[in-house]
Amino acid sequence: MTMLPQSRFAPLPPFARSVPGGVAWPRGFRAVGVASGVKRAGKLDLGLLYSERPCVSAATFTRNAAAAAPVRLTRETSDCAHLRAVVVNAGNANACTGKQGLADAARMRLLAADQLRLPVEQVAVASTGVIGVPLPMERIEEGITRAARELRAGAQPGDVGAEAFASAIRTTDRHPKHGALDVELPEGTVRLGLAAKGCGMISPNMATMLCFVTCDAVLEGPAWEAMLRAAVDASFNRITVDGQESTNDMVVGLCNGASGVTPGEEGQMRLAEALRAALLALAVSMVADGEGSTCVVRLTVEGAPDAAVAEAAARAVADSPLVKTAFYGRDPNWGRIVQAIGMALGRDGHAGLPAAVAYGDVTVVEAGQPRDLDAAERERLAEVMHQAEIDVHVRLDGGPGAATVYFSDLTHDYVTLNAEYTT
Amino acid sequence: MTMLPQSRFAPLPPFARSVPGGVAWPRGFRAVGVASGVKRAGKLDLGLLYSERPCVSAATFTRNAAAAAPVRLTRETSDCAHLRAVVVNAGNANACTGKQGLADAARMRLLAADQLRLPVEQVAVASTGVIGVPLPMERIEEGITRAARELRAGAQPGDVGAEAFASAIRTTDRHPKHGALDVELPEGTVRLGLAAKGCGMISPNMATMLCFVTCDAVLEGPAWEAMLRAAVDASFNRITVDGQESTNDMVVGLCNGASGVTPGEEGQMRLAEALRAALLALAVSMVADGEGSTCVVRLTVEGAPDAAVAEAAARAVADSPLVKTAFYGRDPNWGRIVQAIGMALGRDGHAGLPAAVAYGDVTVVEAGQPRDLDAAERERLAEVMHQAEIDVHVRLDGGPGAATVYFSDLTHDYVTLNAEYTT
Repeated sequence: MTMLPQSRFAPLPPFARSVPGGVAWPRGFRAVGVASGVKRAGKLDLGLLYSERPCVSAATFTRNAAAAAPVRLTRETSDCAHLRAVVVNAGNANACTGKQGLADAARMRLLAADQLRLPVEQVAVASTGVIGVPLPMERIEEGITRAARELRAGAQPGDVGAEAFASAIRTTDRHPKHGALDVELPEGTVRLGLAAKGCGMISPNMATMLCFVTCDAVLEGPAWEAMLRAAVDASFNRITVDGQESTNDMVVGLCNGASGVTPGEEGQMRLAEALRAALLALAVSMVADGEGSTCVVRLTVEGAPDAAVAEAAARAVADSPLVKTAFYGRDPNWGRIVQAIGMALGRDGHAGLPAAVAYGDVTVVEAGQPRDLDAAERERLAEVMHQAEIDVHVRLDGGPGAATVYFSDLTHDYVTLNAEYTT
Repeated sequence: MTMLPQSRFAPLPPFARSVPGGVAWPRGFRAVGVASGVKRAGKLDLGLLYSERPCVSAATFTRNAAAAAPVRLTRETSDCAHLRAVVVNAGNANACTGKQGLADAARMRLLAADQLRLPVEQVAVASTGVIGVPLPMERIEEGITRAARELRAGAQPGDVGAEAFASAIRTTDRHPKHGALDVELPEGTVRLGLAAKGCGMISPNMATMLCFVTCDAVLEGPAWEAMLRAAVDASFNRITVDGQESTNDMVVGLCNGASGVTPGEEGQMRLAEALRAALLALAVSMVADGEGSTCVVRLTVEGAPDAAVAEAAARAVADSPLVKTAFYGRDPNWGRIVQAIGMALGRDGHAGLPAAVAYGDVTVVEAGQPRDLDAAERERLAEVMHQAEIDVHVRLDGGPGAATVYFSDLTHDYVTLNAEYTT
């Protein structure tokens, strides 16, 4: 059974322990994955996630104006504070499919709700895959019926079902992105379960970031929602592979109280911290798995007028093809970082050029000027540049604003993968 | 002698004729280029452009907050409405060079002004090349002195000097980007001369877009400035190779009245149109020459709420690595265009998804839905995708706003060129 991916950028707090398992690790959750035939060759492509008890829930969605039918349906017509089940398919994004697409997403939700004896409002629908092609509804419907039957019958117990669910939402991810945590709170131990997919928006064949989180703590809805939103903001909203936001991105968190453990203030802080670390580990693993990527860079920009300016500057660096190709070449090319930051600041009418730039523990720019590195520093710099996870710090002289983003390099393989004729 | 590059995206108006020549084609201008030793192997790397008569002039500069010393010096302390000479070097950008850099740029200007018997305020300084390295001032000073001597002595007459000047500002451009026009006005014929360099911001070694324009019409300063700004806005401000704005970008236009021809209203309109076409031809040739590029795409977005939204949407498409790799693969992957536009619109809180997408004369999306193409249309689409200059039209349903941008594809060669270890 898979464990949560690890990263030195996302250490787990001491009170959280990674355990083998997935979305069905928290008590009272069940999950299944089946092969409906949307993907070829009998691959798993349809998943159901279900809580035996009512939940508080929260969901975040892509801001893309071309949001796919399942996103629009769920966001606009499900009760996102009381979801109890998710139906998800891979292989077809149900995006740019017009009214038929909305009808198909609604049909998916209705069928799943009927089979699970839930009101439709308690079911979320997610899709990932090719854009602009109608869903093959016959296969989808048969798949949902079969998945629900297996789920009700307990045909895929615990680990097996969760593993199949995680596989059914996966497209081109090279590495699995799911896992489970035991979180020790003053009030007792609660469980978190996670399943995610994503390695860059690589529409139309393989789009989208999806993440499903389960928890068995006893929480009020607003507390769970705040926890989930803060964790998403510190993780999935901080990464970029190619700067592209897909039509189908969705994060759904279900919390069902089945542990009987009600966290107090300290307990809630711990749970929030564990959730943040877990989502960050998944997010970093998406970057590491980004199309063709060979390294993950954590870039922190400090000293900006405010956090928004810091983030704009950090994103300008993270999305600069010049910076990204330099990391591919293991080239500590700080000139490209300075140029990208200057471009972002200039666009917003701000001053405040980089006062300092450091790769790992090697400062290459100080007081706005390049430093002369001695032989030992040059050697250390080469070591830093060859790490799989590279830390970069940029300091401006403009104020208290800071932001961190995580990004991948731009490689020959990225071009190869995305230049293939797909339509 | 070189002619202006040609593009079907930038046809010359019937009253403008491309002639062999460069910045010294308009009467009363002289230009030279010498090898000062900043570049290796005796390559031309220092140019002087000079008008024998007083000029009206205009200049536009990069908005990058990390603007290089020559940009800051010229923008802030030269009289950009009455420039009469330009001194420019390649091989070193004089960027991120602190106070020493400003002092060096000022020294370049002072020396050129002294040699040309001009007030320093009438001289512009431009640089392009490596970032973060102090200028080798001994070589630069010797080069300026020698260039001025040759210029005064007429040692590089007309075409020869202009060609050398254009070579001295060139870095990695594969193709020359200069030329001259005769423009027939109701009042007589005036001349335009042009020299440019640029193939993407590829800092730190080979950065920057530079363009120098000469004209011998008799014009008031504000009329010339308005003409130049409008032409820059419709050309250099509409292109993107990798979305990066350099630290050193600069356009300078000098107009000296030596033709004795004073354009009236119709004449000014013609001159403005010829200037716009010439700068667009140079701009498109920069995109065609973009690092590793194999095609130029002209993308027009119509039907946005306003022009700014249309431009943001067009730029999101032009800078999407997914869209750019798809063009490299000659893949009419409209899903990536829809996704990029949706991302741009969603970010700004707008609705209005693509109602139609067409590659050349083949419409692939209509009323928001993919069209089924017949065999003849599929064949025609493949033809369009294999053109060197590809037209793409996107229509939204949101209002009267429209914008056009020109961009290159993203290729293996781009990655190879920019991943080379350079620092």
